[in-house]
Amino acid sequence: MANAETTTGTIAALQDVATRLRIWSVRATTAAGSGHPTSSASAADIVAALFFHAMRFDAKHPRAPANDRFVLSKGHAAPVLYAAWAQVGLLEPDDLLTLRRIDSDLEGHPTPRLPFVDVATGSLGQGLSVGVGLALGARMQGYDARTWVLLGDGETAEGSVWEAAALAAHEKLGNLIAIVDVNRLGQSGPTMLGADVRAYQRRFGACGWRAVVVDGHDMSAVVSALQRARRGGEAPTAIAALTVKGKDLEGVEGLEGWHGRPLPPDAAERAIAALEARLHHVPPPAIRGPRRKSAAAAEPVTPERAPLPAPVTSGESATREAYGDALVRLGAANANVVALDGDVKNSTYAERFKAAYPDRFIEAFIAEQNMVGMASGLAARGFVPFASSFACFLTRAADQVRMAGISRSNIKLCGSHAGVSIGEDGPSQMALEDLALFRAVPDAVVLYPSDAVSTDACVRLAAGYHGIVYIRTTRMKTPVIYAADERFTVGGMKTVRQTEGDRLAIVGAGVTLHEALAAHEELARAGIAVRLVDLYGIKPIDGEALKAAAAAAGNTLVTVEDHYAEGGLGDAVLGAVAGSGITVVKLAVTAIPRSGKPRELLERHGIGRAAIVARVREILGQG
Amino acid sequence: MANAETTTGTIAALQDVATRLRIWSVRATTAAGSGHPTSSASAADIVAALFFHAMRFDAKHPRAPANDRFVLSKGHAAPVLYAAWAQVGLLEPDDLLTLRRIDSDLEGHPTPRLPFVDVATGSLGQGLSVGVGLALGARMQGYDARTWVLLGDGETAEGSVWEAAALAAHEKLGNLIAIVDVNRLGQSGPTMLGADVRAYQRRFGACGWRAVVVDGHDMSAVVSALQRARRGGEAPTAIAALTVKGKDLEGVEGLEGWHGRPLPPDAAERAIAALEARLHHVPPPAIRGPRRKSAAAAEPVTPERAPLPAPVTSGESATREAYGDALVRLGAANANVVALDGDVKNSTYAERFKAAYPDRFIEAFIAEQNMVGMASGLAARGFVPFASSFACFLTRAADQVRMAGISRSNIKLCGSHAGVSIGEDGPSQMALEDLALFRAVPDAVVLYPSDAVSTDACVRLAAGYHGIVYIRTTRMKTPVIYAADERFTVGGMKTVRQTEGDRLAIVGAGVTLHEALAAHEELARAGIAVRLVDLYGIKPIDGEALKAAAAAAGNTLVTVEDHYAEGGLGDAVLGAVAGSGITVVKLAVTAIPRSGKPRELLERHGIGRAAIVARVREILGQG
Repeated sequence: MANAETTTGTIAALQDVATRLRIWSVRATTAAGSGHPTSSASAADIVAALFFHAMRFDAKHPRAPANDRFVLSKGHAAPVLYAAWAQVGLLEPDDLLTLRRIDSDLEGHPTPRLPFVDVATGSLGQGLSVGVGLALGARMQGYDARTWVLLGDGETAEGSVWEAAALAAHEKLGNLIAIVDVNRLGQSGPTMLGADVRAYQRRFGACGWRAVVVDGHDMSAVVSALQRARRGGEAPTAIAALTVKGKDLEGVEGLEGWHGRPLPPDAAERAIAALEARLHHVPPPAIRGPRRKSAAAAEPVTPERAPLPAPVTSGESATREAYGDALVRLGAANANVVALDGDVKNSTYAERFKAAYPDRFIEAFIAEQNMVGMASGLAARGFVPFASSFACFLTRAADQVRMAGISRSNIKLCGSHAGVSIGEDGPSQMALEDLALFRAVPDAVVLYPSDAVSTDACVRLAAGYHGIVYIRTTRMKTPVIYAADERFTVGGMKTVRQTEGDRLAIVGAGVTLHEALAAHEELARAGIAVRLVDLYGIKPIDGEALKAAAAAAGNTLVTVEDHYAEGGLGDAVLGAVAGSGITVVKLAVTAIPRSGKPRELLERHGIGRAAIVARVREILGQG
Repeated sequence: MANAETTTGTIAALQDVATRLRIWSVRATTAAGSGHPTSSASAADIVAALFFHAMRFDAKHPRAPANDRFVLSKGHAAPVLYAAWAQVGLLEPDDLLTLRRIDSDLEGHPTPRLPFVDVATGSLGQGLSVGVGLALGARMQGYDARTWVLLGDGETAEGSVWEAAALAAHEKLGNLIAIVDVNRLGQSGPTMLGADVRAYQRRFGACGWRAVVVDGHDMSAVVSALQRARRGGEAPTAIAALTVKGKDLEGVEGLEGWHGRPLPPDAAERAIAALEARLHHVPPPAIRGPRRKSAAAAEPVTPERAPLPAPVTSGESATREAYGDALVRLGAANANVVALDGDVKNSTYAERFKAAYPDRFIEAFIAEQNMVGMASGLAARGFVPFASSFACFLTRAADQVRMAGISRSNIKLCGSHAGVSIGEDGPSQMALEDLALFRAVPDAVVLYPSDAVSTDACVRLAAGYHGIVYIRTTRMKTPVIYAADERFTVGGMKTVRQTEGDRLAIVGAGVTLHEALAAHEELARAGIAVRLVDLYGIKPIDGEALKAAAAAAGNTLVTVEDHYAEGGLGDAVLGAVAGSGITVVKLAVTAIPRSGKPRELLERHGIGRAAIVARVREILGQG
């Protein structure tokens, strides 16, 4: 039931908006020769009601912090999103006809090249996590703003949706509304649940949401449902809207086989004519502006009772512990720094941040996909999120990281317990492919510190770089090797041992740097001089410095990494010095490891001190 | 309520088994100096009731196909699993004291080095998907066997659990039982749902499961619940068992801060003494043997009504389409071949397999993690699963692929729509990091065919290799370049153009091979002779053949790949020829792409025919 303010005129106006959204979705996709008009048409009534009735935002400044935010999780319905912003006035209608062209920002799926897109969508099932991050962020910033997420029905098969749903209820995000466009048809056939909107209601309800069903083409009903959702309570609201794929598109409505297919030009003309005939010719309702800030934003909190942890500048310390302490110090200086962790905060040392700033810590539980998605949402509201887990479990969020790369999200990820050097827990807990994963994210920075001092520097570098940064930390303790005032840079490296007669250079990072240091000592005792490079900057990588190191050391680099041989430090070095005539010998893990003591495993996999010594002797013909 | 056969004596015997499981979990972890006794203790009663009452299996042949299967999804409770198999008689009790040693197969988390472990666990939230695969497989093979999966409560935060739950209900897997050990404590604090067993019941119930709650330490109640679950119906059964972490372990029962910590030796002694005092000294019940095969296994089905698709040996064809046809032909020859797809079967062409063998096709819907987990489960029952999706969406299952690598699972993955050459759909749909991901899986084979003939060969090679194989296919059509009888091998390459005066060699694969062919022609017209290599075998890689190609062509290789510069074909080549003095120039995608026409994008990113020509001219000083 619509409330008093929703007059018949308003409904007619919203219906006209929806009809225009359908018209332009057809026009744009037919002009492009590809795209998703039918997925747009099923959502058109919902989108019209959202933009012109339920949402409150500054139409000229889509990223204004007081605005409600909208996430189109079903990113393939991009045409309806673009058409909505054209109706709002932020795009010209004719812009819509540039859809999918290489010179247009109206891409096949939305990306933040557009000012009204917070995070790229198009890999399904990720939008609700982004929405959770946006909603958490709005609450932390003190805005009485809503976050609205439109999902496709097919994408609710993705588990990440349910990770987000569980956390949203746990966090009592009454400012979050999820609308599922239940159009019953996936890309290649009917969805798992078909028209069973009650099943969606039950599943969200079981997660603690206020869940309702609605006819997604009954504008009065849609408006009412959105209004009730706006008012919220402690629980987030889910609206399962029963719709028809291709609704009101003559000749394709409700049919299979029309996913991701534009109407041919003549069919499009007929469909548009039929749509135009439906128009009441009522102008769109006015956009409702955002609410004023209703609560004070979180102020920078310096933990006064507990003094900031002092940087470790001597002795031994695990880089994962140095990460936790560095984050606490960073948090004191920057109120936008927030931390997330996946129920391993006592291992990653994110628990120290939680203790210092409980209001800026988010326990993501064992749900890494949602953790990374939330981080992207928080970043889209101006936060600087640091999310941590065991490095191997961050691979769980590989697709979210990929999409964050496309979004150029300003998120920081820390993976602890890298490599075989974790020891007894065995291969399921050892990250040996994380460098390959993060190196392949465009514009990402990858840092791999080896001691407490460099870890502290890396955390500060991460905060200062706008974009994705990955920091790899180590389980075991390592001695401090740098002076407290040593300077580090994104993409830097350090020569930590050198003489004039160096016969080759060993390139390590993290735990292997310390293995290489021990090897260096043993070789030195045997009269074999080798150079030693700390490649803490894995990406970008300082190719010139590496070449210079090689030039002074027999034109030979021996890389040592606690990572598989593919895609890691060694491959990074090979790429950086390619074409220079430098010989690169890679030492890396090449077999599936097993449980054992850290030192046993390092040697068994040929990356421990003894293995390095043996290999260097072999290379130099002194075996 | 226990049924008639469950006498008081049986209960006492099972309680003794549970007590012995606790004793040995403490002994083994204290001897190892690490491990998870408290997570084992909470599950001990359930495991005792499973192994010595509910499950039916041949204790001497744990992989016998008629057996019930057990998946310890909460892999960190490995000590209780090993202790159970020692009670069964498959291990000696003293073996348990080798836990976590480098010379023992009793790893920190279970791996298939042990004959009773089907798939490695330890990355949480994956076991239920494996269980779905095992249960589907048992049904397809005609065995009246059950699959039992024991989950931790914390791991149900992982979305993959809910992907599996949804599909299990959809597939009516009454032979699947999930037991959640609700011990309330995660690694770093309380779980999201704490002791709310009804919440677990509601969530599984909402997914269509028959869901019950039970006191996980009341042996009669546990036995009854398992018995009822055994009898099953159409729906899978979930049992939310309320337990206490560290149950019956004196001094640590129910306490926080004891996750993953062994008891110190003196505390262990006291705890063991207290446990021993609980023993009724009743021998364990006899193991119940498996049921006979109750139904005929699926017979190899040759689609008689529809003839097998003829191999494409001329003209143009997309490799993704050739994949679908090749799979149909393979399916006729091998009844163990099954196919899975994530609602893109009309794009990957897995739909052709579905049409030919509907009983051997599993629609995984948009849930790639569960798809890969199911594939591992199916492989553990002897199937040869081929799972397909857009290559970019397979990254969603990166952690499942990682664990499949550790398990050496015999699964085949096909990723279609690789690279910028997909065009207008934009970056969210373009796989540009998949080669990096799959190259970093130990022992994985990576194949990247360029035409229909080589695709057909690659599918057959994939089926013939025992282990993970990744096949990368292309959206656009490409002409057939190989004769129908051309031979291909795992790790092979082909020189497709050569003359005696070649000045360099271009190395491409898939779509870039065709770009390079066009470049070759244009260069030839300009009198510039270059060699052309089809590197369809990305991993393993034929370094010697590459070196030979370079030796005959100016000692220079120009790699061209529709993939980011990190971890892909170019890095593979660099690694293969490292140290040989060969100059390698990498052409790859280095910026985040956008929507556009395929040809526009190939050129914009420097991997199209014109870009290759320009770069070759530049390298040869003929710009």
